[in-house]
Amino acid sequence: MELLLLSNSTNHGERMYAHAAETFAQVAAGSTVTFIPYALAAWDDYAYRAEAAFRSFGVELVSAHRAPDPARAILEAEVVMMGGGNTFRLLDTLAGLDVLPGLGHRVRTGETRYLGASAGTNVACPTIRTTNDMPICQPVSFDALGLIPFQINLHYVDRDPASTFMGESREERITEFLEENPCPVLALYEGSWLRVSGRTATVTGRSRLFQRSSAEAFDDGVDISHLMDLIPRFDRGTRPYARAEP
Amino acid sequence: MELLLLSNSTNHGERMYAHAAETFAQVAAGSTVTFIPYALAAWDDYAYRAEAAFRSFGVELVSAHRAPDPARAILEAEVVMMGGGNTFRLLDTLAGLDVLPGLGHRVRTGETRYLGASAGTNVACPTIRTTNDMPICQPVSFDALGLIPFQINLHYVDRDPASTFMGESREERITEFLEENPCPVLALYEGSWLRVSGRTATVTGRSRLFQRSSAEAFDDGVDISHLMDLIPRFDRGTRPYARAEP
Repeated sequence: MELLLLSNSTNHGERMYAHAAETFAQVAAGSTVTFIPYALAAWDDYAYRAEAAFRSFGVELVSAHRAPDPARAILEAEVVMMGGGNTFRLLDTLAGLDVLPGLGHRVRTGETRYLGASAGTNVACPTIRTTNDMPICQPVSFDALGLIPFQINLHYVDRDPASTFMGESREERITEFLEENPCPVLALYEGSWLRVSGRTATVTGRSRLFQRSSAEAFDDGVDISHLMDLIPRFDRGTRPYARAEP
Repeated sequence: MELLLLSNSTNHGERMYAHAAETFAQVAAGSTVTFIPYALAAWDDYAYRAEAAFRSFGVELVSAHRAPDPARAILEAEVVMMGGGNTFRLLDTLAGLDVLPGLGHRVRTGETRYLGASAGTNVACPTIRTTNDMPICQPVSFDALGLIPFQINLHYVDRDPASTFMGESREERITEFLEENPCPVLALYEGSWLRVSGRTATVTGRSRLFQRSSAEAFDDGVDISHLMDLIPRFDRGTRPYARAEP
């Protein structure tokens, strides 16, 4: 299995995907990449920008939405690039195309290499329960591809101590997730990514790892291969909140 | 129908609910308020803080989670206070308690006055599709109480022009919502609230109103009663994204 999961598509002041160009080119080497644009509304524009970016680092890319049968194009790809945007829209569309089980299987068996950024990274997780996106449409299920057995939170930011904003900080939101679900959350700051090759999982850049029992910070990459053996667990049942506390 | 819907529970540097104390006391006048604490995990602590806050402005409050039958306590309340926290957890719990249709009916007929803050404001909307919260658990449906026929976005913030953050701004997220759903979004800055009395809907504080065709900014309150006649529409079907663009 070969995965490259970016926190963000674009670093501040840089061109799209430029910060990970070398790694993209390595993983995609020798293949045409099938782009999946459904996280944004304007596919033609999005595909045009993705093609230009990949061309600049020597990789050919074609968008699935231009194929006569987009689902088939996705399920026959040697490499997919799952573009960022809105995670709910992306998952809903992939479910509508009925490609989730097939694509998941092909990535797990190594037939398809998987590149993703932002929303495209979220749908590689077991569920989309740690997305930052607005739930603009309602997928049948929050269950996603499950290519890794833990959750990722993207565009991670520390609380600004000078801020007067009273909404939840990102850390508080992840704490709420952990209250409900006993599943680790890898938080990737912008500019960071996770690379999985076989059973080896390595973070490049800054990250944090949140679990119910611990919170760790990594300033300069980390090997988290031990998490690949995890069996993911999520709350599935009726909320206990429907009963009064004793 | 009597609604008081706050953007946020607490203003920076102030005590919980203090910024809207006078309005809370007016709407709740003469009644004991039934508090609904299910948006947070620690109900006892939350109820204790809410009781103290309401007591400080002369209103008695009891928490539904302490009643022998919380659903019945909610459905017999003269005034409910729907506390803030995580909107997905709150909606999931209300659905589990099976109080959504009954509470919605009682508020619409004026039998129950409705106070809400943050997540408690989100669930008063037709759906929770404009929440900022993390989808930590999966409600059966995003449909909520529908006490008003438009969406609200809370804790609204303008993009900081000095920021290097590359995730979506709040305005971009609302634009994504409008791409999928032809329903207006009232954005309430922190410190603002919406008061509905009968068919009169008035915003106190700063707000913005986003529609597909327009975006308006109001610095000092606005009457939006005309929106109360709206028939809300949301995308319900299969994504068109499952087909290729022509």
